[in-house]
Amino acid sequence: MGENNAGVIFLGEKVRGYLMVIGGAEDHSGDKKILKKFAEISGQGKANVTVITVASQDHQEVGEMYVEIFSGIGVGHIETLDIKSRSDANKESVAERIASSTGIFFTGGDQLRITSVLGGTKAHYALERAYRQGVIIAGTSAGAAAMSDTMIIGGEGDEAPKGNIVSMAPGLGLLEEVVIDQHFAQRGRMARLLMAVAQNPFILGVGIDEDTAIVVHPDGNFWVIGSNTVTVLDGNCISFTNVSELGPGEPLAVCNIAIHVLSPGLGFDMKKRRPLFE
Amino acid sequence: MGENNAGVIFLGEKVRGYLMVIGGAEDHSGDKKILKKFAEISGQGKANVTVITVASQDHQEVGEMYVEIFSGIGVGHIETLDIKSRSDANKESVAERIASSTGIFFTGGDQLRITSVLGGTKAHYALERAYRQGVIIAGTSAGAAAMSDTMIIGGEGDEAPKGNIVSMAPGLGLLEEVVIDQHFAQRGRMARLLMAVAQNPFILGVGIDEDTAIVVHPDGNFWVIGSNTVTVLDGNCISFTNVSELGPGEPLAVCNIAIHVLSPGLGFDMKKRRPLFE
Repeated sequence: MGENNAGVIFLGEKVRGYLMVIGGAEDHSGDKKILKKFAEISGQGKANVTVITVASQDHQEVGEMYVEIFSGIGVGHIETLDIKSRSDANKESVAERIASSTGIFFTGGDQLRITSVLGGTKAHYALERAYRQGVIIAGTSAGAAAMSDTMIIGGEGDEAPKGNIVSMAPGLGLLEEVVIDQHFAQRGRMARLLMAVAQNPFILGVGIDEDTAIVVHPDGNFWVIGSNTVTVLDGNCISFTNVSELGPGEPLAVCNIAIHVLSPGLGFDMKKRRPLFE
Repeated sequence: MGENNAGVIFLGEKVRGYLMVIGGAEDHSGDKKILKKFAEISGQGKANVTVITVASQDHQEVGEMYVEIFSGIGVGHIETLDIKSRSDANKESVAERIASSTGIFFTGGDQLRITSVLGGTKAHYALERAYRQGVIIAGTSAGAAAMSDTMIIGGEGDEAPKGNIVSMAPGLGLLEEVVIDQHFAQRGRMARLLMAVAQNPFILGVGIDEDTAIVVHPDGNFWVIGSNTVTVLDGNCISFTNVSELGPGEPLAVCNIAIHVLSPGLGFDMKKRRPLFE
């Protein structure tokens, strides 16, 4: 795909880059299918990739690990960007580094670190512009959660859907009209995604399993890659819910959500809300 | 409701009793909402309840516990039936005990113990007849799973839906056209119920949370009681699935299952497959 347009600005136009939203725990040692796809879309040998470790506790270690992996799979140039504070995120040099990238990769950790440090800074605007220009922005785990307008920041797994089960906060806003959840099947997170969709059926719920990703194309379609599944919850036809009356711990009712379980190779048209098969 | 008809036989007629299918871990020490409802439908002070402990490892202890609870909430008469083998299950005295009951309660443990010991015995036929006559048959956990024609006997929780994730076996056949899963949200069992429904959308998938139950009425409607939720998966409109081509570990695709999350007080019409609100 390497037809990225870093450097050319399409301000105000609908042209968009790619997003790769990874459900966490992507394969690092086997066939590395997901990371190889990121490398390919970034431009492979001609790629200039930036790894952003702001979500991670151990910035340096995580950054070095991804540099090593991306080198090993033929990415031309890789740098880590160690953004520790909002003043770092407002540095011209940081915005320039983002602007010069053909691919940007957010590591995992805490999604609130990403948004509280980057939100509204020069780095954030540089990311938006890069994405608009056609660059791919990828994120795994917390880096995945942070991509949407509103992001899930907390909520126990393996619980019944109940009032207060899910905590949300404003995300980076790269992926609109969607709420992402990650480590989806592996951490039993159906309840919190159901709750998010019941709260506002305008939002598409997208639950991404570990070692699985969606690649969001400029046309608004996404395609599934990896080894597990992506669960889409479409609340458009909800006929009844008690969500607006729930006190803490009170059980949710919500009727007639459509669920699509997508295996790798399948896609989804987010505008028309229907699965894609080729 | 105590209008049970134990003793009067409606052979060949559609008249049916009640089923109470409990998702496990029902409250034993608080308001005991679920067990009280069972006591009420069984006939309360005039009830003659049989506790069947065949699923449980520690028959005696579990039996004594339920006898104590049911006594405490005003059940007139309670006996435990300790069926250890198929020859026990073929005893005339066992069939007679079942026939004289106004309520029958299956404890939890291993659903294969229930079916391998009772299946096709005099006890099994006595249960079917009692149910047809209007008696309530309740089961918690394994006792819940065993009620349907086909029952889930295994499958890891918190896993993506994949080939071979769910193991099934023939159940007691009291609840037709339904597959039950229990401890549903608490053990992250969405994947295995999705798989069961994808395999045959004729089957309604009913996932019951802990301390939650459905009460199946003779008209084919069920109503939710307890403290959590019941998740219904209706595969009637499935537009695509790869389930018939899956090898072990290969990810499932299935599009357009309708999901209903029902809180206590709501019901479901299993024939018309639609939620009920009163």
